[in-house]
Amino acid sequence: MAGRKVLIVYAHQEPKSLNGSLKRVAVEELSKQGCSVTVSDLYAMQFEPRATRNDIVGCLHNPEEFNYGVETWEAYKRGDLSNDLIEEQKKVQEADLMIFQFPLYWFSMPAIMKGWMDRVLVQGFAHEFPNCYDSGLLKNKLALFSFTTGGSKEMYAKGGISGDIRYLLWPIQHGIMHFCGVKVLAPHICFAPEYVSEEKRKEMLIAWAQRLKGLWKEEPINCSPEWYFK
Amino acid sequence: MAGRKVLIVYAHQEPKSLNGSLKRVAVEELSKQGCSVTVSDLYAMQFEPRATRNDIVGCLHNPEEFNYGVETWEAYKRGDLSNDLIEEQKKVQEADLMIFQFPLYWFSMPAIMKGWMDRVLVQGFAHEFPNCYDSGLLKNKLALFSFTTGGSKEMYAKGGISGDIRYLLWPIQHGIMHFCGVKVLAPHICFAPEYVSEEKRKEMLIAWAQRLKGLWKEEPINCSPEWYFK
Repeated sequence: MAGRKVLIVYAHQEPKSLNGSLKRVAVEELSKQGCSVTVSDLYAMQFEPRATRNDIVGCLHNPEEFNYGVETWEAYKRGDLSNDLIEEQKKVQEADLMIFQFPLYWFSMPAIMKGWMDRVLVQGFAHEFPNCYDSGLLKNKLALFSFTTGGSKEMYAKGGISGDIRYLLWPIQHGIMHFCGVKVLAPHICFAPEYVSEEKRKEMLIAWAQRLKGLWKEEPINCSPEWYFK
Repeated sequence: MAGRKVLIVYAHQEPKSLNGSLKRVAVEELSKQGCSVTVSDLYAMQFEPRATRNDIVGCLHNPEEFNYGVETWEAYKRGDLSNDLIEEQKKVQEADLMIFQFPLYWFSMPAIMKGWMDRVLVQGFAHEFPNCYDSGLLKNKLALFSFTTGGSKEMYAKGGISGDIRYLLWPIQHGIMHFCGVKVLAPHICFAPEYVSEEKRKEMLIAWAQRLKGLWKEEPINCSPEWYFK
């Protein structure tokens, strides 16, 4: 789909990792389709995950009692967010699709990527009551979570020791993306790549490239409790 | 329960916030009981949330391809983790109970606290296959997640727009604490304190102090899918 814009938010320390390869495959395949692809390589950027007063340039709305949510909302309206946040928001604004590529850390994304969510998706930009969930401010965009796990597919099955993998997708797909109005494509999961052969890891890369070829024809999931917990 | 050791891991930027007050109430009440209380005030410590090569002192096990999980595991065994991690691990090791006090950010903990989980609970220290879940290396410890929300209790009810609040506790209570063998006490949740009166916020502090008085008699929850999703 020539002309579509894709933002890949990528969180792995090692370019030679499977996550690094999955990211490269996505850049190559989507570029080949004529998409314009931007990558936020969070570790390489030394992206700041901490939500602090430094995110607001100049004076505070209420210097007596610091409230991060209120201050970033006010700063957004004044155009006074820190430059790194303005840069990321521009990339989000332009994107038709956001791909989040990361290794699962503790049933969730690594802190550096959680910090991207905490700091970039501020009120006024990504949501503003009552504009949340289906009417969130980032509607008409798509998101896809692509990640690797330590545990096996069997551990992450219903009845498995770690529970259905969908359980842990609720906070990130529904709680973050759906809240901002973003529609969610099915996740792309590579289970336990550290415990399989080099051959199998290559197959994982091929499967990802293959999926990306048909990506623009995919329908978003029905992001409701039924998808996650039924 | 005189003599018990409590670690409070606290993530709020503003001492005057309700989270700040909840933390102070816990320190006061538990100290009054004769407990020894330690606080990790993550923002004040400027705690590093990013999992990087800096967490390993000296040479890497495999300098050709950086694998954070493997490197921190090896560094733990050699005693070569960075000092900030060794300090936090000592506090965890000594604690009978860990209380995590934070405002809910995006259906989860703030990135600075997620970084504490990512970096402190390394393999070898908190878990080491097959010592996970009920036989995790931190067994005989208790954890309690105490947090404030933006959304109301009605939004976080079953059938509410944000779903049962228990859905989002799965990754943090089961995926992190239970995985390390830690038993989990019922969460303590203050819903939407920003939208209630000063009087109601005072009641929230009193209720927390009241709960802490009987805390050592509480039974842990049954941390299984039924608790979260039934």
